[in-house]
Amino acid sequence: MKIAVFQFSPIVGALTYNSDRLLSAIKEAQANHCDLFVCPELCLTGYPPEDLLLRADFASRIQDLIKPIFKISNLTIMLPLPYYEAGKIYNSVLVIRDGIVITRYDKMVLPNYGVFDDKRYFEAGSKAGVFECANYKIGIIICEDMWLTAPAMLAKEHGVDLLCVVNASPYEEGKYHQRLASARQRVAQTDAALLYVNCVGGQDELVYDGGSFLLNEVGEVCYQATAFEAALDYISYTKKCNSSKGGNLVNLVADYPSYLEANYAALVLAVRDYVTRNKFTQVVIGLSGGVDSALVLAIAVDALGADKVIAVMMPSVYTNKISIEDAREITKRFGVTCYHELDIMPAFNQFNTSLSDIFSGRAIDTTEENLQARIRGTLLMAIANKFNALVLTTGNKSEMATGYATLYGDMAGGFAVLKDLLKTMVYALCNWRNRLCEVIPNRIITRAPSAELRANQIDQDSLPDYETLDQIIIELVDNNQSSSAIIASGRFTKEQVLKVAHLIKINEHKRQQAAVGPKITPRSFAKDWRYPITSGYEL
Amino acid sequence: MKIAVFQFSPIVGALTYNSDRLLSAIKEAQANHCDLFVCPELCLTGYPPEDLLLRADFASRIQDLIKPIFKISNLTIMLPLPYYEAGKIYNSVLVIRDGIVITRYDKMVLPNYGVFDDKRYFEAGSKAGVFECANYKIGIIICEDMWLTAPAMLAKEHGVDLLCVVNASPYEEGKYHQRLASARQRVAQTDAALLYVNCVGGQDELVYDGGSFLLNEVGEVCYQATAFEAALDYISYTKKCNSSKGGNLVNLVADYPSYLEANYAALVLAVRDYVTRNKFTQVVIGLSGGVDSALVLAIAVDALGADKVIAVMMPSVYTNKISIEDAREITKRFGVTCYHELDIMPAFNQFNTSLSDIFSGRAIDTTEENLQARIRGTLLMAIANKFNALVLTTGNKSEMATGYATLYGDMAGGFAVLKDLLKTMVYALCNWRNRLCEVIPNRIITRAPSAELRANQIDQDSLPDYETLDQIIIELVDNNQSSSAIIASGRFTKEQVLKVAHLIKINEHKRQQAAVGPKITPRSFAKDWRYPITSGYEL
Repeated sequence: MKIAVFQFSPIVGALTYNSDRLLSAIKEAQANHCDLFVCPELCLTGYPPEDLLLRADFASRIQDLIKPIFKISNLTIMLPLPYYEAGKIYNSVLVIRDGIVITRYDKMVLPNYGVFDDKRYFEAGSKAGVFECANYKIGIIICEDMWLTAPAMLAKEHGVDLLCVVNASPYEEGKYHQRLASARQRVAQTDAALLYVNCVGGQDELVYDGGSFLLNEVGEVCYQATAFEAALDYISYTKKCNSSKGGNLVNLVADYPSYLEANYAALVLAVRDYVTRNKFTQVVIGLSGGVDSALVLAIAVDALGADKVIAVMMPSVYTNKISIEDAREITKRFGVTCYHELDIMPAFNQFNTSLSDIFSGRAIDTTEENLQARIRGTLLMAIANKFNALVLTTGNKSEMATGYATLYGDMAGGFAVLKDLLKTMVYALCNWRNRLCEVIPNRIITRAPSAELRANQIDQDSLPDYETLDQIIIELVDNNQSSSAIIASGRFTKEQVLKVAHLIKINEHKRQQAAVGPKITPRSFAKDWRYPITSGYEL
Repeated sequence: MKIAVFQFSPIVGALTYNSDRLLSAIKEAQANHCDLFVCPELCLTGYPPEDLLLRADFASRIQDLIKPIFKISNLTIMLPLPYYEAGKIYNSVLVIRDGIVITRYDKMVLPNYGVFDDKRYFEAGSKAGVFECANYKIGIIICEDMWLTAPAMLAKEHGVDLLCVVNASPYEEGKYHQRLASARQRVAQTDAALLYVNCVGGQDELVYDGGSFLLNEVGEVCYQATAFEAALDYISYTKKCNSSKGGNLVNLVADYPSYLEANYAALVLAVRDYVTRNKFTQVVIGLSGGVDSALVLAIAVDALGADKVIAVMMPSVYTNKISIEDAREITKRFGVTCYHELDIMPAFNQFNTSLSDIFSGRAIDTTEENLQARIRGTLLMAIANKFNALVLTTGNKSEMATGYATLYGDMAGGFAVLKDLLKTMVYALCNWRNRLCEVIPNRIITRAPSAELRANQIDQDSLPDYETLDQIIIELVDNNQSSSAIIASGRFTKEQVLKVAHLIKINEHKRQQAAVGPKITPRSFAKDWRYPITSGYEL
């Protein structure tokens, strides 16, 4: 059997765009004499379509747009779409052959945790979706269904040779290997082969990594699509196919990227899709001479090209000379020619003058630090507004957790590239990127991090060292641990843990006004993390 | 039977605070020889506790804190709490008498629409919760359960005299009357009386209005608690009680406030609780001489007192002289003595100078308008930072919908008081407030609204008139209507509808960085409205 695997990158809500591309791929598969066409979960609407699903005309627009698919002959098409029936919505796959729906499957397991809200929209299905194609029996599974036992076992009752799993499975570190392990459990339970088809692309806070694959009946990878790239692959499937010996299989096998490479690729894809799909022509990055803005610059250049990047260094009296040198050096190395230096001191002095009466008799405090950050944010936004550009913010997850960031200052911007990267991961990715080619000046990586908002300031004046801080954040955020349990583990001092827990608690208001940014860890600060601002709970 | 109705204002996550107050009320009820103590849904944790429910130590802290409640004798206590069992969580009520749990009821209908995410956390119950107290049979119902038929009918099977409904039902316009109608349906179906107990207070984007009530077996209101205020009321319940004739009932009956009064009261309560519970001592409001900031000032003074308000007028060359006069006049009328005028022109000129090289050859555009707004935002935030105050933003729902607001400019601040008020409602509430006492100068209400960011600018240069705009927003947002259906209705021009729909679509990124603000309509821009930023869908 010849299967067309469409590892597609849809745009949420772009029904015409998505259906046009889907139809092109279907026609190409038809021209290539495929038996079966498989594409990702809900790829007609993009995932997650969120409240668009509830709009009065959403269903009817979909109905209109899929009509041409019913005109295709000699190809069995698995078409994932929201199916509206009797006031309910199902997350479904229609199997269409020669203009006829030969079966329909509704997703049985609706994820409603983490970033997922499937139960807000969908009713769960209860029946297997099994059909015949090229003399094979094929069972349909949709995404979350694969992570539990029941849906695959239900398909097995109907006797299946191949499970086709359609997915919109967001990237996170290590998730590919979890998918593979879960898929192998389903293979072992059903003795069927399993084709896993995922979407690809950046969608606000989510990045889809693609990485579709085929497992044979003994769980060997017979086909592995590229990661982080769209693809229309033609693969062969026969019973008892054997990847190692070749047999009659002529399938592509790509390696899934390593841990750091995958993280970096996810960020590059997220930036590229967010910027281009929101119709920006350029991005603006405030360089500080520090490691965060250096990494954002690297990602932006790799995503968009150096000519699409406007870099701005905005020194104050507290800016170290080497920060300016390093900002100049990194833009040179990356070939970013649109580089500006804007002294913030005249504006800073002006604000201080304007506020001097009101602030009379009051000491200098973080107000003046925030003021510097906000002048910078205002300058970047002005440049962005004037040139139809998007400001990329440079704050990392360690800062988002502890509130070590200024609202409307360094937090001002449209896409927070490093939002889900702990500071230690920022360093790891800088080093990884430098191993390909030394683009980030070494001094940026080795010097002590500083916000440079007052004289001789370094981050560790206010925060535990980042190795410690990041481990505490992982325990408190990713693992939902209580401070008391973390203290009891003896890995950190009580003061360190309580300080970080309190900072996480009191900075929820900042996170809720932060720009969206790509999720790469098991728990990002976005849909994954739903906390009240007004709260009496000390973590 | 004597019932203590504790219309409580818990703080989410403040387990010690909440349980202390709960225990005090229980002891007072016990001392007053009550038979039954009833309080709102999940009032031990506050509602919604969100992801706090998932924290490792949440359940055990609750277990510790409720121990004293098990020491109370001679009182039947309905204790709402999250109940953890076998890895699942239920939204439950324990009925405790003399230290023993005599029954447990788990919420059967879990709302997972609008602002609600109950299915993210809770398993649904399936059994009735009926117990005897003072020779009456009492059936437990939790909030959403009351809006459907099944839970009450299940209780009826067990024979109930009185349905006790515990709620955390957020305020919205007209909701009280819907509750009453729904409660009367349950009464009609079961022939039981119904006690509805709601919580009260502001919790981030939600405001609870209290307004607890008792219906007798024929659906007459026998008890009506005050709205927007905490209360511990003692009420009597007998079978066939009769509100009109008095009978043996000695219950309080307050009137639920009228439409505009309730909206205003909701905003006042929301501001008071957000400010005080987040430990701010003052608020800062940027006055423009316009109607939005005037209403915010009124609400803030009514919520906190004039001495807690810092008002700042920040004129530019585009500011009309009467704007400054009116800002002075309104602060005088409200007794706000902490009033500052800060000219933004020196900072504006400085920014323009700093940017002149980069902007060379480019025309003046909205960049310069945004710059003025951002200078104002920066000034307000500096004052707020210096005085531990909270900036109240003044944007309304019409502006949030259309993006007629500047990120990090007039959107800078911690609480968006008018976020869910259409401009026409802003006018209505100004007029309503002035009928109590003319505090808002009439000229503020009657002059044409203007952002005053360029010469001779008025809002209607860029937007349809507000009457029209607001009606289109209601159709597109509250009613989920498509542009084509709204155009087909013939009420508006095609151009008007398409313009507003497009503005709503392209400004999602602003809404996602907006400050939290109180929901007062059926659909606010917050948890109620979950839309992608990157989207190809034209509404």
